[in-house]
Amino acid sequence: MLNKNIETFIACDCEYADAKTVMFGAPFDSTTSFRPGTRFGPSAIRSESFGIETYSPYQNRDLEDICVFDSGDIELRIGDTDACLSQIEERAKTILDDGKRPMMIGGEHLVTLGVFRAIAERYPDVHIIHFDAHADLREDYLGVKHSHACVLRRCWDIIGDDRIHQFGIRSGERAEFEFAKTHTDMHPFSLEDVASVIKDLARKPVYFTLDLDVLDPSIFPGTGTPEAGGVSFEELRRAATQVCSSLNIVGCDVNELSPHYDHSGVSTAVACKIIREILLAMNE
Amino acid sequence: MLNKNIETFIACDCEYADAKTVMFGAPFDSTTSFRPGTRFGPSAIRSESFGIETYSPYQNRDLEDICVFDSGDIELRIGDTDACLSQIEERAKTILDDGKRPMMIGGEHLVTLGVFRAIAERYPDVHIIHFDAHADLREDYLGVKHSHACVLRRCWDIIGDDRIHQFGIRSGERAEFEFAKTHTDMHPFSLEDVASVIKDLARKPVYFTLDLDVLDPSIFPGTGTPEAGGVSFEELRRAATQVCSSLNIVGCDVNELSPHYDHSGVSTAVACKIIREILLAMNE
Amino acid sequence: MLNKNIETFIACDCEYADAKTVMFGAPFDSTTSFRPGTRFGPSAIRSESFGIETYSPYQNRDLEDICVFDSGDIELRIGDTDACLSQIEERAKTILDDGKRPMMIGGEHLVTLGVFRAIAERYPDVHIIHFDAHADLREDYLGVKHSHACVLRRCWDIIGDDRIHQFGIRSGERAEFEFAKTHTDMHPFSLEDVASVIKDLARKPVYFTLDLDVLDPSIFPGTGTPEAGGVSFEELRRAATQVCSSLNIVGCDVNELSPHYDHSGVSTAVACKIIREILLAMNE
Amino acid sequence: MLNKNIETFIACDCEYADAKTVMFGAPFDSTTSFRPGTRFGPSAIRSESFGIETYSPYQNRDLEDICVFDSGDIELRIGDTDACLSQIEERAKTILDDGKRPMMIGGEHLVTLGVFRAIAERYPDVHIIHFDAHADLREDYLGVKHSHACVLRRCWDIIGDDRIHQFGIRSGERAEFEFAKTHTDMHPFSLEDVASVIKDLARKPVYFTLDLDVLDPSIFPGTGTPEAGGVSFEELRRAATQVCSSLNIVGCDVNELSPHYDHSGVSTAVACKIIREILLAMNE
Amino acid sequence: MLNKNIETFIACDCEYADAKTVMFGAPFDSTTSFRPGTRFGPSAIRSESFGIETYSPYQNRDLEDICVFDSGDIELRIGDTDACLSQIEERAKTILDDGKRPMMIGGEHLVTLGVFRAIAERYPDVHIIHFDAHADLREDYLGVKHSHACVLRRCWDIIGDDRIHQFGIRSGERAEFEFAKTHTDMHPFSLEDVASVIKDLARKPVYFTLDLDVLDPSIFPGTGTPEAGGVSFEELRRAATQVCSSLNIVGCDVNELSPHYDHSGVSTAVACKIIREILLAMNE
Amino acid sequence: MLNKNIETFIACDCEYADAKTVMFGAPFDSTTSFRPGTRFGPSAIRSESFGIETYSPYQNRDLEDICVFDSGDIELRIGDTDACLSQIEERAKTILDDGKRPMMIGGEHLVTLGVFRAIAERYPDVHIIHFDAHADLREDYLGVKHSHACVLRRCWDIIGDDRIHQFGIRSGERAEFEFAKTHTDMHPFSLEDVASVIKDLARKPVYFTLDLDVLDPSIFPGTGTPEAGGVSFEELRRAATQVCSSLNIVGCDVNELSPHYDHSGVSTAVACKIIREILLAMNE
Repeated sequence: MLNKNIETFIACDCEYADAKTVMFGAPFDSTTSFRPGTRFGPSAIRSESFGIETYSPYQNRDLEDICVFDSGDIELRIGDTDACLSQIEERAKTILDDGKRPMMIGGEHLVTLGVFRAIAERYPDVHIIHFDAHADLREDYLGVKHSHACVLRRCWDIIGDDRIHQFGIRSGERAEFEFAKTHTDMHPFSLEDVASVIKDLARKPVYFTLDLDVLDPSIFPGTGTPEAGGVSFEELRRAATQVCSSLNIVGCDVNELSPHYDHSGVSTAVACKIIREILLAMNE
Repeated sequence: MLNKNIETFIACDCEYADAKTVMFGAPFDSTTSFRPGTRFGPSAIRSESFGIETYSPYQNRDLEDICVFDSGDIELRIGDTDACLSQIEERAKTILDDGKRPMMIGGEHLVTLGVFRAIAERYPDVHIIHFDAHADLREDYLGVKHSHACVLRRCWDIIGDDRIHQFGIRSGERAEFEFAKTHTDMHPFSLEDVASVIKDLARKPVYFTLDLDVLDPSIFPGTGTPEAGGVSFEELRRAATQVCSSLNIVGCDVNELSPHYDHSGVSTAVACKIIREILLAMNE
Repeated sequence: MLNKNIETFIACDCEYADAKTVMFGAPFDSTTSFRPGTRFGPSAIRSESFGIETYSPYQNRDLEDICVFDSGDIELRIGDTDACLSQIEERAKTILDDGKRPMMIGGEHLVTLGVFRAIAERYPDVHIIHFDAHADLREDYLGVKHSHACVLRRCWDIIGDDRIHQFGIRSGERAEFEFAKTHTDMHPFSLEDVASVIKDLARKPVYFTLDLDVLDPSIFPGTGTPEAGGVSFEELRRAATQVCSSLNIVGCDVNELSPHYDHSGVSTAVACKIIREILLAMNE
Repeated sequence: MLNKNIETFIACDCEYADAKTVMFGAPFDSTTSFRPGTRFGPSAIRSESFGIETYSPYQNRDLEDICVFDSGDIELRIGDTDACLSQIEERAKTILDDGKRPMMIGGEHLVTLGVFRAIAERYPDVHIIHFDAHADLREDYLGVKHSHACVLRRCWDIIGDDRIHQFGIRSGERAEFEFAKTHTDMHPFSLEDVASVIKDLARKPVYFTLDLDVLDPSIFPGTGTPEAGGVSFEELRRAATQVCSSLNIVGCDVNELSPHYDHSGVSTAVACKIIREILLAMNE
Repeated sequence: MLNKNIETFIACDCEYADAKTVMFGAPFDSTTSFRPGTRFGPSAIRSESFGIETYSPYQNRDLEDICVFDSGDIELRIGDTDACLSQIEERAKTILDDGKRPMMIGGEHLVTLGVFRAIAERYPDVHIIHFDAHADLREDYLGVKHSHACVLRRCWDIIGDDRIHQFGIRSGERAEFEFAKTHTDMHPFSLEDVASVIKDLARKPVYFTLDLDVLDPSIFPGTGTPEAGGVSFEELRRAATQVCSSLNIVGCDVNELSPHYDHSGVSTAVACKIIREILLAMNE
Repeated sequence: MLNKNIETFIACDCEYADAKTVMFGAPFDSTTSFRPGTRFGPSAIRSESFGIETYSPYQNRDLEDICVFDSGDIELRIGDTDACLSQIEERAKTILDDGKRPMMIGGEHLVTLGVFRAIAERYPDVHIIHFDAHADLREDYLGVKHSHACVLRRCWDIIGDDRIHQFGIRSGERAEFEFAKTHTDMHPFSLEDVASVIKDLARKPVYFTLDLDVLDPSIFPGTGTPEAGGVSFEELRRAATQVCSSLNIVGCDVNELSPHYDHSGVSTAVACKIIREILLAMNE
């Protein structure tokens, strides 16, 4: 008898019961009913992941050696943003309740808010490490509070000052940079200061949110708002590995790949490779 | 002294006071803050319109001979669908109040609802001629009522049975086709029956809404949901010209061009050409 | 507890035991280890199928009403053509042994040979209906006998004269057209004669192989060897529906989509729509 | 010892002395020093021609059976339009002096003027058959007389009234259509009238100039100015075959392929196929 | 009453009378009448500029705080190069006469010559800072003197030795590099020496011409002649900011974006961002 | 009389008898009969080479000053891998027998094996310098030994331990990296150690094989398996120049360009430029 077709990120086919990390996709980019955008990110990543190796020569570790479960995409109620965020929150809660770590693939950056609500409830002293080109600290965007341009501000609403550590930021309104001065720990333009922050966060629960547009658009053109002057893949790989292998990562997400703008496929391949490195580093 | 840079659809640079028809763009495709989709339609159409001639050998008429005013795009509050619809309604109302005919360039098809509210208020006995691949008659889409998959149903909420004349429809849920049987005048798959309907509508006020995906995707690939088996450009040109030159068109819209999926530029050129033909036919 | 991620062609999620038709993908385009070509066809079709409706207004039938099982792609031993063909043959045999009908998604056209071996063993009196731009009747291609340019010739090796009915053919070597005169039933350039052939085949077991490049490249650019002068989508839809609803189809395949050449996504959407129509027509 | 690398249109590798028809490319699209446009047409056509068969099932003839010499591209002095036209004229003259028929691959349509000067000198009673979307009858384009929008007008300067037979025209200024009424034999929108014109031209020397944008942009998107509402490939193939096999063609050209706008490669494949059909039809 | 549609580079909507800097586009790429190339640069930049922020975190300044007027594109007489250069010269003269600084967006690099004639007339002691991949110092290109490969040589004709400071040059004929040794101040391959040259030019009038292909094609693929081994965005941003904030910039231009080769949109976004930084730096 | 059309890499039009280096293309990417992949590499490189200068400002040398013969592509028996490798071996042997140096343009990396067999026979003490993203050291790939993932392992079969010097490797299975520890001289991730290896190889015969995917995909997206974290163009240019100008290069190849994934043309331009630098450096 033939089996049903199961599709996962490469080598993330562990049994749920055994997995320490549980992946899922949040194919959200708002209310358009088909096509544009980051909503196609998770499925592109899953299917293109078979183009990379499971082995990392950087870490000398192999996805075959660890145990990750990929539960696929949530079927979101596109068009009702609040409902979608609740669905994401619920999925994260289930994973956390089962003693596992959620790893979400976006989707636009707003999806972070859904997971983070569940994370913050369970780990009230959680810190956020945020890699991004954009500050995402607006109070609202044209009056809308649940926008991807506001997602870190919404996280700040939950956990308050000095708990959000931002790196690589190189775009935003003046007001966002002003806000950051007194409310977040912002390290603009590069990832250089990551090491020093890691020291301060030892043993604390940390949520890691990676907006892939922190990368320079030369290596990551496939995103909605390319912003020149970003970090190189090697800079990201090193910083992300350091964060994930040194800290107590209680959850994470990787977002903002928009595969339809990735004509050469390079952006998707980059996303797959960085996810492999994060998975390997977190599971040391 | 130098002048400010004014950009219009080709040859639609009449003075507002003199214009009988007023164009505007509704760059709406919902809540994503930049990039994907039909929101780029109006500006692509405006700028690529300079690649076509102002003269139509089909009608032996020239845009230079008529008087159209292009008021540019509305600055929509993207992310708040209801607010956007109100902004569109208001723009249409202004134009109608000044005794002119609105011609809107979308955007996704939902924008039609904004204009149509203003139209239906002024012309309570208005009929709709609807060219589309999709029925757009769902009661809701995943619970959302203001979706582009529901827009004609929302128009039906306003004007009721036997007032919506649908042509070219070749996709939808079974329930939409069932609904059409008793509530709309649906002519699926082709535009062949347009002539007979035109006879019945002589002298009545008519709103014409053209979803460009009624075209076969071979000639119009640049749209969100390409649906094979559509009409040819010539079939559309003839039917649209007939509708616009024979009937009392009190308003119209052309929508669903998604320029980022139009790599060759053919879809945008097609949109420009059909808009020229509509403008010329309406202004006979 | 969360479930594994199951991915199927839209609405083909029936239980295996209940299914009359079983789909599978043959992601074969030879020995290159990653990227180019038709090997990406089945997964593109599966994932883009969620962009079409399950309901067909042409047939007034819905995929939700029938029972199809999608068993996913075979993991082929790319680089060893003979081994791949055997794997495909074995999959088809399993399905036939369980009293079901195989429906394969290619992959290049050579994959047909694998399924057809199993079919011909079970139904020695089987006929083939073949829609294609190319005759595929070469004795060999640069000395290679297992080439996609030879696949119908290899089928002829098995079943012999007057059992292969070819439609839409518009390209090949002179020798292939000569061969066809005495050995196959070739109807070049169009699908017009399908109806008359159907009459002759009533009640006989028929294998239907559809090379999508029979379509005109205007509507199906995403293929390896686009050949102008093909049939329209409507012509294909009607002919394929007629074949599948009138005859005793014991197996079928749809092949030669090469998604990386399908920049607009139209070819993939076309493939999905024709597969829906075939599934609905076969399951009447 | 190894040979130099010779590149020709497929199977056009006859010796010059034996050839009746001599091809050459005119990679002209004006003064830009690298990249955009039709200047890449001839080399794209030459290299992609190896994707088509040498045999035509339409005519049951094979390029292997006839004798054509491809002399490659002229090295044009891009930037000096007059010099380029002279270079083209000179090449055509050489071919005519050797008792052969020139077949030029453009480049933009202006290149026709170069060949036609040589043709008209040798055949003062020559007629032109012109397939195009555009009338190309402007007196000047923004003051420039040697523009591709004026090329047939420049030919008219040479041969005068009633000698230019235009088909498929569907775009131009009003003045061009007015001019055509009294000076050319224009059959707008389609190729339907070709047969009747052929009768009138029996035995006369005829120059055939084919602007590929006469095709509908659905099948030929790769051109500078796509104009919807064109003829199908089959319509073009039939009309071109009829022209070339019935008349005394003393020279011809095929132009306006712009390969960089031909992402799928379909337009280039179409150009190759129509050139094959023309070569076969002319050499009956 | 509705307003006409005004389109400017983001936030460059100051009144002309108040503006210190006046932008305009020179959509020139020679005689082709539609489509290819850099002629689409200015309008792409204008419309995509709405994808970037008005605030620069690098300079902590905002376009909202300064006063720039964008006068749109000049309607050039494409096909007559000399006329086009005169039109550009005239526009620059008008701006200079009104005591303002011209900032031109190209178009191909030849457009610089038009502006520079006006600049050199008003500021006879002007120096040029030139960032480019190409030397642009040919005496002629295939006999043509007004070519974009000769533009700096034409500027040298006007101002002579030791007044042109070239940076980043990594391509040219041997003769150009020889010429540079005795006639210009060339710093090939990088922008490293900019600081030292700035010192020498303090208080002198300086014209800044930026050919965007000085950037590495990894970050700026959308140009006619991509030349590997270029500078990074950060290197360009720093050098351009230094030049524009330290020196007396009396005019400048940014050129050679060819949007049709910019499939991902990254090149256009890069152009917009560097223009923002230049505008902010010049207006300190 | 007109000449046949000869096409070579720019300025590589020396007579065979005079040439020290002989180029040829190996358009191999396995058994698919048309389209996908690296098989289009050599012809794209040849035709795009006319977009670069013949002069290198890096080396102050010009292709016009040296003597290279380009013998075009081998007509390979695609589909029969062993036959293809023999054809390549034979071509290399001819060149070596004539006392010249072969320079092959791929095609996929497996083509190296063909040339290398001829090289190793003539120079039994030859060493290999290998730049690549991938180790290519698998014993087999899904059971296939002649795969591009195994090519260096097959070379090792011929020459054994300590003769293969690998640089830039950043991807492979764990087993390949294990194998390298005891059998090859691997310098992963960068080209930094090239200088020290060069010292050790002075005067020895060296074969240089360059898989262009050693470059970062930001600058070289047009390849089958893009692997982030690669070297920059400048790093490659310097290392390749050093290798080719310092060592006794008895043969070399440049491979893995896949032009159909190179939408912007940048990858092909990069390949052309590095080939120019290699040719100039080898011919010092």
